[in-house]
Amino acid sequence: MGRIFEGSQKLMSLITANTMHHFFWQSLLTEENCFQSTESFFEWFSHKKTHYHFSVQRIPFSSLSQWLFDESTQNLRHSSGRFFSIEGIRVHTNFGPVHTWDQPIINQPEIGILGIITRMINGVLYFLMQAKMEPGNVNLLQLSPTVQATKSNFTQVHGGKLPHYLEYFIDRKKSRFLIDVLQSEQGGRFLQKRNRNMIVLVDHDLEIHDDFCWLTLGQIKKLLQYDNFVNMDARSVLSCIPLPSSYTGLVDAQKTILDSADINHYNHFSKSLCESLLCPEQQACYTLYEILSWFTELKTKYQINVQRIPLKEVKGWKRTDTEICHEKYPFFSVIAVSVEAGTREVFSWTQPLLMEHQQGLLGFLTKKINGVLHFLMQAKAEPGNRDGIEIAPTVSCSAAAFKLQRNDIIPFLDFFLNAPPERIHCDTVQSEEGGRFYHFLNRNMVIELDESTPLELPENYIWMTLGQIIELIKHGYMNIDTRTLCACLGLKR
Amino acid sequence: MGRIFEGSQKLMSLITANTMHHFFWQSLLTEENCFQSTESFFEWFSHKKTHYHFSVQRIPFSSLSQWLFDESTQNLRHSSGRFFSIEGIRVHTNFGPVHTWDQPIINQPEIGILGIITRMINGVLYFLMQAKMEPGNVNLLQLSPTVQATKSNFTQVHGGKLPHYLEYFIDRKKSRFLIDVLQSEQGGRFLQKRNRNMIVLVDHDLEIHDDFCWLTLGQIKKLLQYDNFVNMDARSVLSCIPLPSSYTGLVDAQKTILDSADINHYNHFSKSLCESLLCPEQQACYTLYEILSWFTELKTKYQINVQRIPLKEVKGWKRTDTEICHEKYPFFSVIAVSVEAGTREVFSWTQPLLMEHQQGLLGFLTKKINGVLHFLMQAKAEPGNRDGIEIAPTVSCSAAAFKLQRNDIIPFLDFFLNAPPERIHCDTVQSEEGGRFYHFLNRNMVIELDESTPLELPENYIWMTLGQIIELIKHGYMNIDTRTLCACLGLKR
Repeated sequence: MGRIFEGSQKLMSLITANTMHHFFWQSLLTEENCFQSTESFFEWFSHKKTHYHFSVQRIPFSSLSQWLFDESTQNLRHSSGRFFSIEGIRVHTNFGPVHTWDQPIINQPEIGILGIITRMINGVLYFLMQAKMEPGNVNLLQLSPTVQATKSNFTQVHGGKLPHYLEYFIDRKKSRFLIDVLQSEQGGRFLQKRNRNMIVLVDHDLEIHDDFCWLTLGQIKKLLQYDNFVNMDARSVLSCIPLPSSYTGLVDAQKTILDSADINHYNHFSKSLCESLLCPEQQACYTLYEILSWFTELKTKYQINVQRIPLKEVKGWKRTDTEICHEKYPFFSVIAVSVEAGTREVFSWTQPLLMEHQQGLLGFLTKKINGVLHFLMQAKAEPGNRDGIEIAPTVSCSAAAFKLQRNDIIPFLDFFLNAPPERIHCDTVQSEEGGRFYHFLNRNMVIELDESTPLELPENYIWMTLGQIIELIKHGYMNIDTRTLCACLGLKR
Repeated sequence: MGRIFEGSQKLMSLITANTMHHFFWQSLLTEENCFQSTESFFEWFSHKKTHYHFSVQRIPFSSLSQWLFDESTQNLRHSSGRFFSIEGIRVHTNFGPVHTWDQPIINQPEIGILGIITRMINGVLYFLMQAKMEPGNVNLLQLSPTVQATKSNFTQVHGGKLPHYLEYFIDRKKSRFLIDVLQSEQGGRFLQKRNRNMIVLVDHDLEIHDDFCWLTLGQIKKLLQYDNFVNMDARSVLSCIPLPSSYTGLVDAQKTILDSADINHYNHFSKSLCESLLCPEQQACYTLYEILSWFTELKTKYQINVQRIPLKEVKGWKRTDTEICHEKYPFFSVIAVSVEAGTREVFSWTQPLLMEHQQGLLGFLTKKINGVLHFLMQAKAEPGNRDGIEIAPTVSCSAAAFKLQRNDIIPFLDFFLNAPPERIHCDTVQSEEGGRFYHFLNRNMVIELDESTPLELPENYIWMTLGQIIELIKHGYMNIDTRTLCACLGLKR
């Protein structure tokens, strides 16, 4: 057979196509940990926080070291030409209320790796997670994937060490690649950025470095109920996990799960989530082909043309000594920071970050249709998307307070702002990527409407089951906002 | 529910998610036609051929009417700025043996519609096909989808009539959209061109215009055994048909098909095709997630950078009075033709076309692995692809004779050139799109290797089942060459 998989024959026998979904599911149901309880994990994590030296200070652009405004374009870039740069784009679109604008955007054309190592220990799948500092995090330290590596990282542009465990995501002889898909990042902030989202399986003892620990999926889901605890990259990878659904073709496995007594330990909404995952296509509001047709029509109808322009030509934005910001509105700013971090050895560097001025809101509106929980999804054009339109949650809105104040029309936002507590099934604040964003927080909400609530849907909204959402994540249809919200969905007792 | 589907409630009850695959399958098995036998269809088609006036003449560029070489770029474009233009690209890539080149390319940034109307008649699904003249066809008239419409067509830039039946592909109240997916065209000739490939269902009598007729899928598959009979657009749409597979989750339907006595009427290779379609994932060489991982790794490893340049700056190509061609090699040329066509009313126009100088070869190498027929597929970077790499058949090679003569290394080509007759399961010559290409022919071959034949695979090749290929067509991974070959696969008694 193909050479690329030859090294992993032994690993292939551990988890087969048929059982992969099942082992992820079992780990989801497991909150017990043979290494450490969730309590001792918290102690370990707090200890990291207090014993590390971290400091992030805003600085003027002129204090940036090795970063400069390019003479001819005024683009903000690294002197090596690597890492990322802040450039300009001019957008023309027939989608949405605003048809043309300029804005700064992050250009980082490389595909990085976001990866989690898993291992079967006593029949349960464990995930190797990392306590990682990133300068843009409000709380600096968050739970992160095993590896977050840009190409500049692993080609060692900065001359530093290779990230721990990177080899398991590069060498197929060392692990089995269970999940390995390209996923986008924020299309409003990144120009066509994508990362490999990977979960790999190893079958032997690993040296566990400082800052790393094994957790079950059930434990991680519990941590996702806390604000700003599990970082964006981890959430993105976790959202790619293929739980059993009607699209996996594993009918027996599905039945086992639905019939299992375990499910009865969980609350009503958790049961609805399971049903929405396993719902056969004929009970869903639309078939997958109907959803693809809805998406195809919108892609045909709406264009978003993005022209790269020098940052100096971006209209409506201004640059001061300390930030690049919009002249009128509290959209994001480009700022600069200096960072110090370390324990024994202290590293320091400076870099630009994108700062958000207000919290955003990401929300799934859910409702039972024909007895099955459906999620209201939105096709949304954003300039950094590789193909114009991706699928976003019901509400996906940055600087929400300002937009409300300006009386922008944000469909379905009211349902979230006025939701009675008993209809709110998830409500946490989560951080976007702290390596590029400074204090970029989104409130993540999932609310359930009464079955009888009538809704008028604009053409770019459609109902999907959870099984359909996860199937479409596999092929890259879902934007980062959808994926981060999916990661937050967990089973609660 | 969503407004977009409201009009089609009645149609939804005709064919459900559960039964759509089944009805396509039944039509595939049906060669009887309640309107006309295949024989009388041939008579009808020959009659069209002899009673239409067609004439296509090569002309010098200077005789083109309404087409001109743009003064500043020398791009060849329509005076309206619509339709398509011939421009230049400069390519840099780390994929394949040639790392940089210039070439002309067709730029047609609109999404067109390629669509077939279907109807259930006496329990069998019929396809409304069209006998359509296109200037680049070797035989002028070929069997085409119900509708082939560019956006310029249906926005009536040319001031002509709307194409017949177009409304059924635009107005969801008039039909049910069964299949509706975006698919690419030749990435070596078109810059990011895509079309909506659609199959819609109507539930009432239609006026059948001249040049249109109803055929079953079984009949169309039979016509695909003839050279240059079913055009490229029809083949592309037909390849999107979702036959029952392990990815449709329709276990009962699958069993019905495999157990059905019908299958026993077909030859050995046809049975192998059915098994490859229905093969459960655990019997396939690789799971779909493993295939996605292979694809993700190649996308990460290989880049193809395409810079649009004025045609006048394309190096290595020259323009004469009658063609734009490569200075040394028999790659394609850009030529101009004048066309006359019609019966009572005669239309005439002039247009550019891309001419191929030699026949190409598209081939699937197949082999049983673990008792299941697998297809050897290739990840291939072409400059016109929207995302660099798409999945091509084992061999996908234009100007095959020239490349052999030049001693180019074309993996697996020898298997096709030296295949013993009993190993050849498909061998026809098919035409690429006659609206843009002049006499662009590809030999389409499917051969089966002995199970014991050892093969060393380069990293960008992988084995897939037919079920996996069709599942990936759904999401746009497969290039036009793969799709055209898939369309040619049929069941033979």
